[in-house]
Amino acid sequence: MQFTSERRLDDGVLEREFTLGEIPGTLWTPGSAPAPLILMAHNNGLPKGQPRLVARARHSAAHGYAVATIDAAGCGERPRSAADEQARADLRRAMQAGEPVDEIFESFIGPLVEKAVPEWRTTLDALLSLPEIGGPVGYSGWTAVGIRLAVVEPRIAAAGFFAGGYVPRAQREEARQVTIPLLFLLQWDDEGNPRQRALDLFDAFGSKEKTLHANMGGHVGTPWFEVEDGNRFFGRHLK
Amino acid sequence: MQFTSERRLDDGVLEREFTLGEIPGTLWTPGSAPAPLILMAHNNGLPKGQPRLVARARHSAAHGYAVATIDAAGCGERPRSAADEQARADLRRAMQAGEPVDEIFESFIGPLVEKAVPEWRTTLDALLSLPEIGGPVGYSGWTAVGIRLAVVEPRIAAAGFFAGGYVPRAQREEARQVTIPLLFLLQWDDEGNPRQRALDLFDAFGSKEKTLHANMGGHVGTPWFEVEDGNRFFGRHLK
Repeated sequence: MQFTSERRLDDGVLEREFTLGEIPGTLWTPGSAPAPLILMAHNNGLPKGQPRLVARARHSAAHGYAVATIDAAGCGERPRSAADEQARADLRRAMQAGEPVDEIFESFIGPLVEKAVPEWRTTLDALLSLPEIGGPVGYSGWTAVGIRLAVVEPRIAAAGFFAGGYVPRAQREEARQVTIPLLFLLQWDDEGNPRQRALDLFDAFGSKEKTLHANMGGHVGTPWFEVEDGNRFFGRHLK
Repeated sequence: MQFTSERRLDDGVLEREFTLGEIPGTLWTPGSAPAPLILMAHNNGLPKGQPRLVARARHSAAHGYAVATIDAAGCGERPRSAADEQARADLRRAMQAGEPVDEIFESFIGPLVEKAVPEWRTTLDALLSLPEIGGPVGYSGWTAVGIRLAVVEPRIAAAGFFAGGYVPRAQREEARQVTIPLLFLLQWDDEGNPRQRALDLFDAFGSKEKTLHANMGGHVGTPWFEVEDGNRFFGRHLK
């Protein structure tokens, strides 16, 4: 893990860009160390530098968490194949037209998840070797990657998932194997995530302790107080 | 409003029993005054002195809210008619047997709600005349009474509703007229509140700002952190 830039924010948080092989990432660490860690895995289509994601990460870091995010393979600003670009365009067009998207979704997002998870695990290894990061480890964001990680990675102690209407079949099927505490956050009228599918997924998780939060509006309308609720959720479980 | 007893709790909260005509109530006020007010309307079958309800009220009072509860007509420890006793027994038996309960529910709970709401308004008048209570006013608890109050009582600024699977038809129909900010709390496997009906009710409310919280388990399994979430919800709206 090589740090390529750093800056100290007003609230004492240290924000550093890093690379780990081909993986670009950002790490925010609070003034106090060692800190528990939150892996913040944004939706595959957004770059890790997207301002709302950065604002959330900084807020959590200011509240005592180390927060890390990466652009996994094929995600964010990582190179995309022509086939991936085509699949993204097809998916967007089908969604806007209200056509079924399951097959495009399956063939495109399924492999992205499969490739992202090992990169997150490699990143986790590197992060936990830093003296300023103590653990335990939480996960926040992209539902499909989070399900896979929660199943294969015993170091993940609690997770907050967002949206979850469209999730590849493999992850829908392994949802029952997820048993860690969950906070499942959805937008009631999320244009890209059918509500009933998201509720069914919430129902399917094997966790004894799982909480659903739903708010009004579309995909990007999540109210800011949910960031604070997320911090409190991790506060209960990352100790 | 006559105070009939008082005691000062360890955290500085003053807990007073009162009567207002035939209405028995309890008022908790924090050390600092004037405080915003939360009307805590428990489920009709429970007495206002039920320990879990009292614990919640004390916690909210310790966080700066005046909290009041009453046993409305036919509820808690107020006298019940023989017909009411019979209806309660019929309802319990039908629920346990998994039989349809809508008609019993409608003929029994509907009138209880109609009688409870004017008593809550009378209580609100009396409470707001006390110098230690400033407002604004929030409502917490019994969904059907809360819907009716939110529709007829402009002094209610925000409300937290619990359960809401079975709600009389009149209140289901006026849910669209509720436009104040809402926190809607349900238990995913509430034996007395069908999940889909509760979700449909949440969907029906006219409020632009409404949040759903759902947790695992049955009717009495709500985790304690929801009391804290409720305080934060009121903190955003009762200012």
